[in-house]
Amino acid sequence: MKITALAGGVGGAKLAHGLAQILAPEELTIIVNTGDDFEHLGLYICPDLDTVCYTLGGLANPETGWGRINETWNTIANVERLGGPAWFRLGDQDIATHLERTRRLREGQSLSQITRDFCKAWGIQHTILPMSDSPVRTRVDTDEGELAFQEYFVHRQCAPKVKGFRFDGVEGAESVVGAKEAIEQADAVIICPSNPWVSVDPILQVIKKINKPVVAVSPIIGGKTVKGPAAKMFDELGIEPSALAVAKHYRNILTGFVLDNADSLLEDDVKNLNVQTLVTDTLMNHLTDRTRLAEDVLHFIGSL
Amino acid sequence: MKITALAGGVGGAKLAHGLAQILAPEELTIIVNTGDDFEHLGLYICPDLDTVCYTLGGLANPETGWGRINETWNTIANVERLGGPAWFRLGDQDIATHLERTRRLREGQSLSQITRDFCKAWGIQHTILPMSDSPVRTRVDTDEGELAFQEYFVHRQCAPKVKGFRFDGVEGAESVVGAKEAIEQADAVIICPSNPWVSVDPILQVIKKINKPVVAVSPIIGGKTVKGPAAKMFDELGIEPSALAVAKHYRNILTGFVLDNADSLLEDDVKNLNVQTLVTDTLMNHLTDRTRLAEDVLHFIGSL
Repeated sequence: MKITALAGGVGGAKLAHGLAQILAPEELTIIVNTGDDFEHLGLYICPDLDTVCYTLGGLANPETGWGRINETWNTIANVERLGGPAWFRLGDQDIATHLERTRRLREGQSLSQITRDFCKAWGIQHTILPMSDSPVRTRVDTDEGELAFQEYFVHRQCAPKVKGFRFDGVEGAESVVGAKEAIEQADAVIICPSNPWVSVDPILQVIKKINKPVVAVSPIIGGKTVKGPAAKMFDELGIEPSALAVAKHYRNILTGFVLDNADSLLEDDVKNLNVQTLVTDTLMNHLTDRTRLAEDVLHFIGSL
Repeated sequence: MKITALAGGVGGAKLAHGLAQILAPEELTIIVNTGDDFEHLGLYICPDLDTVCYTLGGLANPETGWGRINETWNTIANVERLGGPAWFRLGDQDIATHLERTRRLREGQSLSQITRDFCKAWGIQHTILPMSDSPVRTRVDTDEGELAFQEYFVHRQCAPKVKGFRFDGVEGAESVVGAKEAIEQADAVIICPSNPWVSVDPILQVIKKINKPVVAVSPIIGGKTVKGPAAKMFDELGIEPSALAVAKHYRNILTGFVLDNADSLLEDDVKNLNVQTLVTDTLMNHLTDRTRLAEDVLHFIGSL
């Protein structure tokens, strides 16, 4: 079975990792959000892309889900001592990724080329693609005005109330070479349990058209997100946060939807959207959970 | 006594450190070579300036003389893993200096302003000035063609034979605010035991005129340098490397010259240049050596 997965950060990376345990390298392509990329301390940082790569490369910090395992923090501690911006906690190993990526981008290499080389260096065999080589910048409209995504997400810790989102540059952004081909050759597209508003929507807007079965895994369980502000965003936008709200969000492209056992009461409502459902355990606390959920989702796709 | 010291890297930093143990902050200004500054991995790196600052701030690696004490190397190890340029060994703490300096330079701040702020953050009370806020780039003419200084010095480990030097940008480079004033108010200028060709000459060319007594401490002891390629450079330029050769190099501006006990036989030759001499122990293995040599040099200046 050939799968193209769309992923944002931690949650998406976990399912992508599970899929990579089951599918061969030629059977899985992961397209990753770059809307939360930003330049900071002169470094070009791709948080979602790095989280997916680190996770698949076995390099991720298992406690946070982002950043590197066995990380040290000597650079950022010294930036802080010098009075520099230290609110975005960059680890020493992680900084190498940003330094070398920034160097290569300045040399004129594309983000997708750089990502391919990095994956090779990290021993990652599955294909990980940034959604676009052109900058797309998620801007969050809030009650305190419009904020750059990382300003909202990390610096302000999602405190301002969300009113809407804008993906600066998305109109002119082409998907990278291989992304459309991967979708064309796929049996299905899996939307991983990532934030619908700021992780998945930017990818969908770049990809534009998916004429394959699309199966989404809800990032909301029991009205809450495992991590991140997706539930808070639904709430502030006047939508009750739930797996159903996620299914409605994707309804125009959705063939199948995966809900957690905790949300089994919502299954019929999702079915009423003319969407097929799988109810299973979607929490991924351990590596075995990732693989099991990936297996469940692949079986579900086989049954559609 | 008011002193302005001219310094390059490790050797110069050691004597500057010794002087700072004796002289009050308002009595000592250190002007540092920036001819070996370069951009690498997108970072603006000032090796001599950082060595002097780290040394005076008690942050320097006591074994190498350059870089930071208790340094870790996680970033550069990961740059190397990604196939990036790792020949210039940047430590994790050290990288913070370059990241924050580069960020501020891009914001339009001057190197001297940034250095002032960094010194404050590091608890350094004496004034350390980069020789210029304009880029001056030492270029080494060799039998393999002209090389950027760090390319020659670190990447090629001084292997190519030297034919001459050029300080790109030095004609238009002004000394920083405070440098000329410090020399005007000084009782004497001390040329620290740094490389005459590539550490001190760039400073002298920027400063242009010194109408104060100048005392130089020989970086060559017994025909050899403690560290660095000064002796090799004299040799390749057809000059027998010796303390006498150093004195001759500076003869036009020299009032006094400090030779090591090992070179006492050269004292008369130096005197014949119409330069007063001090013969003493100039090796600085320990912190106490730095202070003792500084004391000796200050006494010598007092006697001129």
